[in-house]
Amino acid sequence: MNLVSFLGPSGTFSQEAAEKISDNLVSLCTIPAVMDSVERKNCKYGVVPIENSIEGPVGLTLDSLAHNFNLKIFKEIIIPINHCLLVNPEANLSDITDIYSHNQAISQCQGYIFEKKFNQHFTLSTAKACELIKNKNNCAAIANSKASTIYGLKVADKSIQDIKNNKTRFVVLSKEDHEYTGFDKTSIIFSVDDDRLGQLYEILGIFNKFNVNLTKIESRPSKEGLGNYLFFIDFQGHRNEKHVIKILNEINEKSIFLKILGSYPQFK
Amino acid sequence: MNLVSFLGPSGTFSQEAAEKISDNLVSLCTIPAVMDSVERKNCKYGVVPIENSIEGPVGLTLDSLAHNFNLKIFKEIIIPINHCLLVNPEANLSDITDIYSHNQAISQCQGYIFEKKFNQHFTLSTAKACELIKNKNNCAAIANSKASTIYGLKVADKSIQDIKNNKTRFVVLSKEDHEYTGFDKTSIIFSVDDDRLGQLYEILGIFNKFNVNLTKIESRPSKEGLGNYLFFIDFQGHRNEKHVIKILNEINEKSIFLKILGSYPQFK
Repeated sequence: MNLVSFLGPSGTFSQEAAEKISDNLVSLCTIPAVMDSVERKNCKYGVVPIENSIEGPVGLTLDSLAHNFNLKIFKEIIIPINHCLLVNPEANLSDITDIYSHNQAISQCQGYIFEKKFNQHFTLSTAKACELIKNKNNCAAIANSKASTIYGLKVADKSIQDIKNNKTRFVVLSKEDHEYTGFDKTSIIFSVDDDRLGQLYEILGIFNKFNVNLTKIESRPSKEGLGNYLFFIDFQGHRNEKHVIKILNEINEKSIFLKILGSYPQFK
Repeated sequence: MNLVSFLGPSGTFSQEAAEKISDNLVSLCTIPAVMDSVERKNCKYGVVPIENSIEGPVGLTLDSLAHNFNLKIFKEIIIPINHCLLVNPEANLSDITDIYSHNQAISQCQGYIFEKKFNQHFTLSTAKACELIKNKNNCAAIANSKASTIYGLKVADKSIQDIKNNKTRFVVLSKEDHEYTGFDKTSIIFSVDDDRLGQLYEILGIFNKFNVNLTKIESRPSKEGLGNYLFFIDFQGHRNEKHVIKILNEINEKSIFLKILGSYPQFK
Protein backbone atom coordinates (compact mmCIF):
# COMPACT_ATOMS: atom_id res chain seq x y z
CA MET A 1 0.00 0.00 0.00
CA ASN A 2 1.27 3.46 -0.84
CA LEU A 3 2.91 5.28 2.06
CA VAL A 4 1.73 8.89 2.55
CA SER A 5 3.67 11.50 4.54
CA PHE A 6 2.05 14.52 6.17
CA LEU A 7 3.10 17.55 8.20
CA GLY A 8 2.99 16.18 11.74
CA PRO A 9 2.99 15.54 14.57
CA SER A 10 -0.16 13.47 15.06
CA GLY A 11 -3.35 15.40 15.67
CA THR A 12 -2.73 18.27 13.21
CA PHE A 13 -5.20 19.33 10.53
CA SER A 14 -2.70 17.94 7.98
CA GLN A 15 -3.31 14.47 9.39
CA GLU A 16 -7.05 15.00 9.02
CA ALA A 17 -6.44 15.80 5.32
CA ALA A 18 -4.03 12.87 4.80
CA GLU A 19 -6.55 10.41 6.28
CA LYS A 20 -8.84 11.25 3.37
CA ILE A 21 -6.50 9.48 0.95
CA SER A 22 -4.84 6.68 2.99
CA ASP A 23 -4.52 4.87 6.32
CA ASN A 24 -0.86 4.17 5.72
CA LEU A 25 0.54 7.45 7.07
CA VAL A 26 3.88 8.70 8.27
CA SER A 27 4.22 11.94 10.22
CA LEU A 28 7.20 14.20 9.32
CA CYS A 29 8.14 17.33 11.21
CA THR A 30 8.58 19.99 8.49
CA ILE A 31 7.08 20.89 5.11
CA PRO A 32 10.43 20.41 3.28
CA ALA A 33 10.79 16.96 4.97
CA VAL A 34 7.39 15.92 3.55
CA MET A 35 8.40 17.12 0.07
CA ASP A 36 11.78 15.42 0.34
CA SER A 37 10.13 12.08 1.23
CA VAL A 38 8.19 12.23 -2.05
CA GLU A 39 11.12 13.44 -4.14
CA ARG A 40 13.28 10.53 -2.86
CA LYS A 41 10.34 8.15 -3.44
CA ASN A 42 10.24 7.05 0.21
CA CYS A 43 6.59 8.05 0.05
CA LYS A 44 4.22 7.93 -2.92
CA TYR A 45 2.33 11.04 -1.74
CA GLY A 46 2.95 13.92 0.67
CA VAL A 47 0.24 16.16 2.16
CA VAL A 48 0.99 19.80 3.09
CA PRO A 49 -1.16 22.92 3.67
CA ILE A 50 -0.96 25.49 0.84
CA GLU A 51 -3.43 28.24 1.83
CA ASN A 52 -5.90 29.22 4.50
CA SER A 53 -9.00 31.29 3.81
CA ILE A 54 -8.06 33.75 6.59
CA GLU A 55 -4.29 33.73 6.97
CA GLY A 56 -3.53 33.37 3.28
CA PRO A 57 -0.75 31.39 1.64
CA VAL A 58 1.58 29.06 3.52
CA GLY A 59 4.81 30.76 2.45
CA LEU A 60 7.10 27.80 3.08
CA THR A 61 4.97 25.51 0.87
CA LEU A 62 4.90 27.99 -2.02
CA ASP A 63 8.60 28.83 -1.73
CA SER A 64 9.63 25.17 -1.50
CA LEU A 65 7.54 24.24 -4.56
CA ALA A 66 9.01 27.18 -6.49
CA HIS A 67 12.66 26.90 -5.53
CA ASN A 68 13.60 23.58 -3.96
CA PHE A 69 11.59 20.64 -5.29
CA ASN A 70 10.32 19.26 -8.58
CA LEU A 71 6.97 17.91 -7.48
CA LYS A 72 3.50 17.86 -8.99
CA ILE A 73 0.11 18.45 -7.41
CA PHE A 74 -1.91 15.23 -7.67
CA LYS A 75 -4.98 16.32 -5.71
CA GLU A 76 -6.37 19.11 -3.53
CA ILE A 77 -8.25 18.64 -0.23
CA ILE A 78 -10.15 21.38 1.57
CA ILE A 79 -10.75 20.98 5.33
CA PRO A 80 -12.90 23.25 7.53
CA ILE A 81 -10.82 24.51 10.45
CA ASN A 82 -12.47 24.53 13.87
CA HIS A 83 -10.12 25.60 16.60
CA CYS A 84 -10.79 24.29 20.11
CA LEU A 85 -9.37 25.39 23.44
CA LEU A 86 -7.86 22.28 25.04
CA VAL A 87 -6.97 22.06 28.74
CA ASN A 88 -5.87 19.38 31.21
CA PRO A 89 -8.70 17.10 32.46
CA GLU A 90 -8.58 18.60 35.98
CA ALA A 91 -8.24 22.25 34.82
CA ASN A 92 -10.98 24.92 34.69
CA LEU A 93 -11.35 27.52 31.99
CA SER A 94 -11.27 30.25 34.65
CA ASP A 95 -7.77 29.20 35.80
CA ILE A 96 -6.20 29.62 32.37
CA THR A 97 -3.64 32.43 32.06
CA ASP A 98 -1.44 31.23 29.20
CA ILE A 99 -2.21 29.90 25.75
CA TYR A 100 0.05 27.90 23.42
CA SER A 101 -0.27 27.15 19.72
CA HIS A 102 1.13 27.42 16.22
CA ASN A 103 1.52 30.94 14.86
CA GLN A 104 -1.39 30.56 12.38
CA ALA A 105 -3.82 29.19 15.01
CA ILE A 106 -2.90 32.00 17.42
CA SER A 107 -3.43 34.58 14.64
CA GLN A 108 -6.84 33.13 13.83
CA CYS A 109 -8.05 33.41 17.44
CA GLN A 110 -6.78 36.92 18.27
CA GLY A 111 -10.22 38.22 19.28
CA TYR A 112 -10.81 35.34 21.70
CA ILE A 113 -7.30 35.56 23.19
CA PHE A 114 -7.62 39.33 23.63
CA GLU A 115 -11.03 39.02 25.32
CA LYS A 116 -9.76 36.35 27.73
CA LYS A 117 -6.51 38.30 28.35
CA PHE A 118 -4.37 35.17 27.84
CA ASN A 119 -0.59 35.45 27.44
CA GLN A 120 0.21 33.93 24.05
CA HIS A 121 3.12 31.59 23.23
CA PHE A 122 4.10 30.24 19.82
CA THR A 123 4.91 26.57 19.18
CA LEU A 124 6.04 24.64 16.09
CA SER A 125 2.63 22.97 15.67
CA THR A 126 -0.79 22.77 17.32
CA ALA A 127 0.14 19.25 18.48
CA LYS A 128 3.39 20.48 20.08
CA ALA A 129 1.26 22.93 22.08
CA CYS A 130 -0.80 20.01 23.45
CA GLU A 131 2.39 18.25 24.57
CA LEU A 132 3.72 21.40 26.22
CA ILE A 133 0.67 22.16 28.40
CA LYS A 134 0.47 18.61 29.82
CA ASN A 135 -0.04 18.82 33.62
CA LYS A 136 0.05 22.64 33.60
CA ASN A 137 -3.40 23.60 34.84
CA ASN A 138 -3.09 27.32 34.04
CA CYS A 139 -2.20 26.61 30.41
CA ALA A 140 -4.36 25.87 27.37
CA ALA A 141 -3.59 24.85 23.79
CA ILE A 142 -5.40 25.72 20.56
CA ALA A 143 -5.83 22.58 18.40
CA ASN A 144 -8.52 20.47 16.74
CA SER A 145 -10.89 18.38 18.84
CA LYS A 146 -9.19 15.15 17.79
CA ALA A 147 -5.95 16.24 19.46
CA SER A 148 -7.75 16.15 22.82
CA THR A 149 -8.04 12.34 22.56
CA ILE A 150 -4.46 11.85 21.39
CA TYR A 151 -2.94 14.00 24.14
CA GLY A 152 -5.32 13.23 27.02
CA LEU A 153 -6.78 16.74 27.22
CA LYS A 154 -10.37 17.97 27.34
CA VAL A 155 -12.19 20.47 25.11
CA ALA A 156 -12.90 23.59 27.24
CA ASP A 157 -14.23 25.72 24.38
CA LYS A 158 -15.13 25.15 20.71
CA SER A 159 -14.94 27.11 17.44
CA ILE A 160 -12.92 29.92 19.05
CA GLN A 161 -11.56 31.33 15.77
CA ASP A 162 -12.45 34.96 14.97
CA ILE A 163 -14.05 34.15 11.63
CA LYS A 164 -16.28 31.12 11.52
CA ASN A 165 -15.93 30.29 7.80
CA ASN A 166 -12.31 29.14 8.13
CA LYS A 167 -10.94 26.58 5.66
CA THR A 168 -7.51 25.28 4.80
CA ARG A 169 -6.59 23.93 1.39
CA PHE A 170 -4.08 21.07 1.36
CA VAL A 171 -2.26 19.67 -1.67
CA VAL A 172 -1.30 16.05 -2.21
CA LEU A 173 2.15 16.12 -3.84
CA SER A 174 3.57 13.34 -5.99
CA LYS A 175 6.10 12.74 -8.80
CA GLU A 176 3.25 12.84 -11.36
CA ASP A 177 0.12 14.94 -11.57
CA HIS A 178 -3.41 13.60 -12.18
CA GLU A 179 -4.91 12.42 -15.47
CA TYR A 180 -7.75 14.37 -17.13
CA THR A 181 -11.12 14.03 -15.39
CA GLY A 182 -13.19 16.76 -17.08
CA PHE A 183 -13.42 18.87 -13.91
CA ASP A 184 -9.79 19.91 -13.45
CA LYS A 185 -7.60 22.71 -12.27
CA THR A 186 -4.02 23.58 -13.25
CA SER A 187 -1.45 25.32 -11.01
CA ILE A 188 1.50 27.31 -12.37
CA ILE A 189 4.24 29.61 -11.07
CA PHE A 190 5.75 32.35 -13.22
CA SER A 191 7.76 35.53 -12.92
CA VAL A 192 8.05 38.61 -15.10
CA ASP A 193 10.80 41.19 -15.61
CA ASP A 194 11.85 43.11 -12.53
CA ASP A 195 10.78 46.55 -13.79
CA ARG A 196 7.81 45.43 -15.84
CA LEU A 197 4.92 44.47 -13.60
CA GLY A 198 2.88 45.43 -16.72
CA GLN A 199 3.79 42.00 -18.08
CA LEU A 200 1.47 40.55 -15.46
CA TYR A 201 -1.29 42.43 -17.26
CA GLU A 202 -0.29 40.84 -20.57
CA ILE A 203 -0.27 37.36 -19.04
CA LEU A 204 -3.70 37.82 -17.45
CA GLY A 205 -4.81 38.90 -20.93
CA ILE A 206 -3.99 35.42 -22.24
CA PHE A 207 -6.48 33.84 -19.81
CA ASN A 208 -8.99 36.51 -20.78
CA LYS A 209 -8.56 35.75 -24.51
CA PHE A 210 -9.27 32.03 -23.98
CA ASN A 211 -12.09 32.82 -21.56
CA VAL A 212 -10.52 30.75 -18.81
CA ASN A 213 -11.37 31.41 -15.15
CA LEU A 214 -8.65 31.96 -12.58
CA THR A 215 -9.44 30.42 -9.18
CA LYS A 216 -6.40 31.81 -7.38
CA ILE A 217 -3.70 34.44 -7.79
CA GLU A 218 -0.97 34.94 -5.20
CA SER A 219 2.19 36.97 -5.33
CA ARG A 220 5.30 35.96 -3.41
CA PRO A 221 8.64 37.77 -3.24
CA SER A 222 11.11 36.10 -5.59
CA LYS A 223 13.72 36.62 -2.84
CA GLU A 224 15.74 38.82 -5.18
CA GLY A 225 14.63 42.18 -3.79
CA LEU A 226 11.52 44.19 -2.89
CA GLY A 227 9.10 44.53 -5.82
CA ASN A 228 10.37 41.34 -7.45
CA TYR A 229 7.66 38.67 -7.52
CA LEU A 230 6.71 35.15 -8.39
CA PHE A 231 3.02 34.70 -9.23
CA PHE A 232 1.11 31.55 -8.31
CA ILE A 233 -1.98 31.10 -10.46
CA ASP A 234 -4.61 28.33 -10.45
CA PHE A 235 -7.08 28.12 -13.32
CA GLN A 236 -9.80 25.83 -14.59
CA GLY A 237 -8.77 23.18 -17.13
CA HIS A 238 -6.26 20.35 -17.59
CA ARG A 239 -2.80 20.88 -19.08
CA ASN A 240 -3.54 18.21 -21.71
CA GLU A 241 -6.52 20.15 -23.09
CA LYS A 242 -5.78 21.94 -26.38
CA HIS A 243 -6.65 25.47 -25.27
CA VAL A 244 -4.63 25.03 -22.04
CA ILE A 245 -1.59 23.92 -24.07
CA LYS A 246 -1.91 27.17 -26.06
CA ILE A 247 -2.25 29.25 -22.89
CA LEU A 248 0.85 27.67 -21.36
CA ASN A 249 2.86 28.22 -24.55
CA GLU A 250 1.90 31.91 -24.66
CA ILE A 251 2.77 32.40 -20.98
CA ASN A 252 6.10 30.69 -21.57
CA GLU A 253 6.89 33.28 -24.27
CA LYS A 254 5.93 36.28 -22.12
CA SER A 255 7.43 35.27 -18.76
CA ILE A 256 11.04 34.91 -17.71
CA PHE A 257 10.31 31.81 -15.62
CA LEU A 258 7.46 29.28 -15.80
CA LYS A 259 6.96 26.14 -13.69
CA ILE A 260 3.90 23.95 -14.18
CA LEU A 261 2.86 22.36 -10.89
CA GLY A 262 0.39 20.11 -12.68
CA SER A 263 -3.29 19.42 -13.24
CA TYR A 264 -5.63 17.67 -10.82
CA PRO A 265 -9.36 17.30 -10.12
CA GLN A 266 -11.10 20.27 -8.47
CA PHE A 267 -12.17 19.54 -4.91
CA LYS A 268 -15.90 18.84 -4.56
CA MET B 1 7.66 67.09 19.86
CA ASN B 2 5.59 64.48 18.05
CA LEU B 3 5.36 61.12 19.79
CA VAL B 4 6.01 58.11 17.53
CA SER B 5 4.96 54.57 18.40
CA PHE B 6 6.67 51.47 16.99
CA LEU B 7 6.30 47.69 17.18
CA GLY B 8 8.42 46.89 20.23
CA PRO B 9 9.96 45.85 22.46
CA SER B 10 13.22 47.81 22.32
CA GLY B 11 15.89 46.42 20.05
CA THR B 12 13.66 45.34 17.16
CA PHE B 13 14.20 46.36 13.55
CA SER B 14 11.02 48.47 13.89
CA GLN B 15 12.82 50.64 16.44
CA GLU B 16 15.71 51.04 14.00
CA ALA B 17 13.18 52.31 11.42
CA ALA B 18 11.36 54.59 13.90
CA GLU B 19 14.65 56.22 14.96
CA LYS B 20 14.97 57.53 11.41
CA ILE B 21 12.06 59.90 11.99
CA SER B 22 12.13 60.79 15.70
CA ASP B 23 13.87 60.38 19.08
CA ASN B 24 10.59 60.65 20.92
CA LEU B 25 9.56 57.00 20.72
CA VAL B 26 7.14 54.74 22.52
CA SER B 27 7.30 50.96 22.18
CA LEU B 28 3.96 49.10 21.86
CA CYS B 29 3.60 45.35 21.87
CA THR B 30 1.41 44.60 18.82
CA ILE B 31 0.82 45.99 15.32
CA PRO B 32 -2.86 46.82 16.08
CA ALA B 33 -1.74 48.65 19.28
CA VAL B 34 0.58 50.85 17.19
CA MET B 35 -2.24 51.63 14.74
CA ASP B 36 -4.67 52.29 17.57
CA SER B 37 -2.28 54.81 19.17
CA VAL B 38 -2.33 56.82 15.92
CA GLU B 39 -6.08 56.48 15.36
CA ARG B 40 -6.76 57.78 18.90
CA LYS B 41 -4.17 60.55 18.34
CA ASN B 42 -2.05 59.46 21.30
CA CYS B 43 0.77 59.35 18.80
CA LYS B 44 1.29 61.48 15.70
CA TYR B 45 2.97 58.62 13.81
CA GLY B 46 3.19 54.82 14.13
CA VAL B 47 5.87 52.63 12.51
CA VAL B 48 5.11 49.03 11.50
CA PRO B 49 6.70 46.53 9.08
CA ILE B 50 4.67 45.95 5.88
CA GLU B 51 6.79 43.59 3.77
CA ASN B 52 10.06 41.72 3.75
CA SER B 53 11.98 40.92 0.57
CA ILE B 54 12.20 37.23 1.54
CA GLU B 55 9.20 36.39 3.71
CA GLY B 56 6.74 38.58 1.83
CA PRO B 57 3.91 40.65 3.26
CA VAL B 58 3.29 41.13 6.97
CA GLY B 59 -0.27 39.78 6.97
CA LEU B 60 -1.39 41.47 10.17
CA THR B 61 -0.33 44.92 8.89
CA LEU B 62 -2.17 44.48 5.57
CA ASP B 63 -5.28 43.01 7.19
CA SER B 64 -5.44 45.70 9.89
CA LEU B 65 -5.06 48.50 7.31
CA ALA B 66 -7.78 46.92 5.15
CA HIS B 67 -10.33 45.99 7.80
CA ASN B 68 -9.75 47.68 11.16
CA PHE B 69 -8.25 51.16 10.87
CA ASN B 70 -8.61 54.30 8.81
CA LEU B 71 -5.00 55.36 8.59
CA LYS B 72 -2.84 56.83 5.85
CA ILE B 73 0.72 56.05 4.85
CA PHE B 74 2.86 59.16 5.41
CA LYS B 75 6.26 57.73 4.56
CA GLU B 76 8.08 54.49 3.77
CA ILE B 77 11.42 53.39 5.25
CA ILE B 78 13.48 50.46 3.97
CA ILE B 79 15.96 48.83 6.37
CA PRO B 80 18.52 46.13 5.50
CA ILE B 81 18.03 43.14 7.80
CA ASN B 82 21.16 41.53 9.21
CA HIS B 83 20.37 38.76 11.65
CA CYS B 84 22.94 38.02 14.36
CA LEU B 85 23.27 35.04 16.67
CA LEU B 86 23.33 36.46 20.21
CA VAL B 87 24.50 34.44 23.23
CA ASN B 88 25.26 35.09 26.89
CA PRO B 89 28.65 36.75 27.55
CA GLU B 90 30.12 33.60 29.11
CA ALA B 91 28.62 31.18 26.50
CA ASN B 92 30.44 29.53 23.58
CA LEU B 93 28.94 28.95 20.14
CA SER B 94 29.80 25.22 20.46
CA ASP B 95 27.59 24.87 23.59
CA ILE B 96 24.43 26.14 21.86
CA THR B 97 21.67 23.55 21.41
CA ASP B 98 18.54 25.74 21.29
CA ILE B 99 17.66 28.85 19.35
CA TYR B 100 14.88 31.39 20.04
CA SER B 101 13.39 34.09 17.86
CA HIS B 102 10.38 35.54 16.08
CA ASN B 103 8.77 33.34 13.44
CA GLN B 104 10.04 35.51 10.53
CA ALA B 105 13.64 35.61 11.80
CA ILE B 106 13.64 31.82 12.33
CA SER B 107 12.26 31.32 8.80
CA GLN B 108 14.95 33.55 7.32
CA CYS B 109 17.77 31.54 8.96
CA GLN B 110 16.55 27.98 8.23
CA GLY B 111 19.76 26.96 6.41
CA TYR B 112 21.96 28.09 9.30
CA ILE B 113 19.72 26.49 11.95
CA PHE B 114 19.60 23.21 10.01
CA GLU B 115 23.38 23.13 9.58
CA LYS B 116 23.98 23.77 13.29
CA LYS B 117 21.24 21.28 14.27
CA PHE B 118 19.68 23.76 16.75
CA ASN B 119 16.22 23.11 18.23
CA GLN B 120 14.08 26.08 17.24
CA HIS B 121 11.59 27.95 19.46
CA PHE B 122 9.25 30.76 18.44
CA THR B 123 8.85 33.99 20.44
CA LEU B 124 6.63 37.05 20.00
CA SER B 125 9.58 39.23 18.92
CA THR B 126 13.34 39.08 18.40
CA ALA B 127 13.71 41.15 21.59
CA LYS B 128 11.59 38.72 23.62
CA ALA B 129 13.98 35.96 22.52
CA CYS B 130 16.90 37.97 23.98
CA GLU B 131 15.10 38.27 27.32
CA LEU B 132 14.29 34.55 27.36
CA ILE B 133 17.84 33.25 26.83
CA LYS B 134 19.33 35.40 29.62
CA ASN B 135 21.68 33.23 31.77
CA LYS B 136 20.95 30.11 29.70
CA ASN B 137 24.34 29.23 28.24
CA ASN B 138 23.06 26.57 25.82
CA CYS B 139 20.57 28.99 24.25
CA ALA B 140 20.94 31.63 21.55
CA ALA B 141 18.65 34.31 20.13
CA ILE B 142 18.39 35.67 16.60
CA ALA B 143 18.17 39.48 16.68
CA ASN B 144 19.95 42.58 15.37
CA SER B 145 23.37 43.55 16.71
CA LYS B 146 21.93 46.48 18.65
CA ALA B 147 19.86 44.11 20.81
CA SER B 148 23.12 42.65 22.18
CA THR B 149 23.87 45.97 23.94
CA ILE B 150 20.31 46.40 25.24
CA TYR B 151 20.07 42.86 26.66
CA GLY B 152 23.69 42.33 27.81
CA LEU B 153 24.45 39.61 25.26
CA LYS B 154 27.32 39.13 22.82
CA VAL B 155 27.32 38.63 19.05
CA ALA B 156 28.47 35.03 18.38
CA ASP B 157 27.80 35.09 14.63
CA LYS B 158 26.77 37.72 12.06
CA SER B 159 24.63 37.86 8.91
CA ILE B 160 23.29 34.34 9.46
CA GLN B 161 20.23 34.75 7.20
CA ASP B 162 19.99 32.37 4.24
CA ILE B 163 19.74 35.12 1.63
CA LYS B 164 22.09 38.04 2.09
CA ASN B 165 20.03 40.72 0.26
CA ASN B 166 17.34 40.87 2.95
CA LYS B 167 15.37 44.10 3.40
CA THR B 168 12.23 45.06 5.30
CA ARG B 169 9.96 47.89 4.25
CA PHE B 170 8.29 49.82 7.09
CA VAL B 171 5.46 52.33 6.76
CA VAL B 172 4.97 55.41 8.88
CA LEU B 173 1.22 55.66 9.52
CA SER B 174 -0.62 58.86 10.35
CA LYS B 175 -4.07 60.47 10.12
CA GLU B 176 -2.98 62.27 6.93
CA ASP B 177 -0.79 61.21 4.04
CA HIS B 178 2.10 63.25 2.57
CA GLU B 179 1.91 66.27 0.27
CA TYR B 180 3.12 66.07 -3.35
CA THR B 181 6.92 65.98 -3.70
CA GLY B 182 7.32 65.03 -7.39
CA PHE B 183 8.78 61.59 -6.56
CA ASP B 184 5.78 59.87 -4.99
CA LYS B 185 4.07 56.55 -4.63
CA THR B 186 0.40 55.77 -3.94
CA SER B 187 -0.92 52.69 -2.12
CA ILE B 188 -4.43 51.30 -2.62
CA ILE B 189 -6.47 48.25 -1.63
CA PHE B 190 -9.31 46.94 -3.80
CA SER B 191 -11.39 43.83 -4.33
CA VAL B 192 -13.27 42.45 -7.32
CA ASP B 193 -16.26 40.17 -7.67
CA ASP B 194 -15.88 36.71 -6.19
CA ASP B 195 -16.22 34.80 -9.44
CA ARG B 196 -14.58 37.34 -11.69
CA LEU B 197 -10.84 37.40 -11.15
CA GLY B 198 -10.83 38.65 -14.77
CA GLN B 199 -11.72 42.07 -13.33
CA LEU B 200 -8.19 42.20 -11.96
CA TYR B 201 -7.09 42.12 -15.61
CA GLU B 202 -9.35 45.08 -16.41
CA ILE B 203 -8.00 47.08 -13.46
CA LEU B 204 -4.39 46.40 -14.38
CA GLY B 205 -5.39 47.62 -17.86
CA ILE B 206 -6.15 51.05 -16.39
CA PHE B 207 -2.56 51.43 -15.18
CA ASN B 208 -1.37 50.21 -18.55
CA LYS B 209 -3.50 52.80 -20.39
CA PHE B 210 -2.02 55.67 -18.35
CA ASN B 211 1.47 54.16 -18.63
CA VAL B 212 1.88 54.09 -14.85
CA ASN B 213 4.33 51.68 -13.24
CA LEU B 214 3.25 49.35 -10.45
CA THR B 215 5.90 48.87 -7.77
CA LYS B 216 4.01 46.23 -5.80
CA ILE B 217 1.08 43.84 -6.16
CA GLU B 218 0.02 41.55 -3.33
CA SER B 219 -3.07 39.42 -2.94
CA ARG B 220 -4.55 38.65 0.48
CA PRO B 221 -7.56 36.51 1.31
CA SER B 222 -10.58 38.75 1.90
CA LYS B 223 -11.49 36.38 4.77
CA GLU B 224 -14.74 35.52 3.02
CA GLY B 225 -13.64 32.19 1.55
CA LEU B 226 -10.90 30.58 -0.55
CA GLY B 227 -10.41 32.33 -3.92
CA ASN B 228 -11.77 35.62 -2.58
CA TYR B 229 -9.08 38.30 -2.54
CA LEU B 230 -8.13 41.82 -1.66
CA PHE B 231 -5.37 43.28 -3.83
CA PHE B 232 -2.76 45.68 -2.45
CA ILE B 233 -1.17 47.76 -5.18
CA ASP B 234 1.53 50.45 -5.00
CA PHE B 235 2.19 52.62 -8.02
CA GLN B 236 4.24 55.66 -9.00
CA GLY B 237 2.51 59.05 -8.70
CA HIS B 238 0.65 61.19 -6.17
CA ARG B 239 -3.13 60.99 -5.70
CA ASN B 240 -3.39 64.76 -6.36
CA GLU B 241 -1.91 64.43 -9.86
CA LYS B 242 -4.50 64.66 -12.65
CA HIS B 243 -3.79 61.29 -14.28
CA VAL B 244 -3.77 59.55 -10.87
CA ILE B 245 -7.18 61.06 -10.07
CA LYS B 246 -8.48 59.56 -13.35
CA ILE B 247 -6.93 56.17 -12.56
CA LEU B 248 -8.51 56.09 -9.10
CA ASN B 249 -11.91 57.06 -10.50
CA GLU B 250 -11.79 54.27 -13.09
CA ILE B 251 -10.73 51.69 -10.47
CA ASN B 252 -13.56 52.85 -8.24
CA GLU B 253 -16.04 52.09 -11.04
CA LYS B 254 -14.64 48.61 -11.76
CA SER B 255 -14.02 47.34 -8.20
CA ILE B 256 -16.48 46.43 -5.47
CA PHE B 257 -14.27 47.92 -2.74
CA LEU B 258 -11.55 50.60 -2.94
CA LYS B 259 -9.52 52.07 -0.08
CA ILE B 260 -6.81 54.66 -0.75
CA LEU B 261 -4.00 54.30 1.79
CA GLY B 262 -2.44 57.55 0.60
CA SER B 263 0.49 59.04 -1.27
CA TYR B 264 3.99 59.55 0.11
CA PRO B 265 7.55 60.09 -1.11
CA GLN B 266 9.35 57.06 -2.55
CA PHE B 267 12.21 55.89 -0.32
CA LYS B 268 15.65 56.88 -1.61
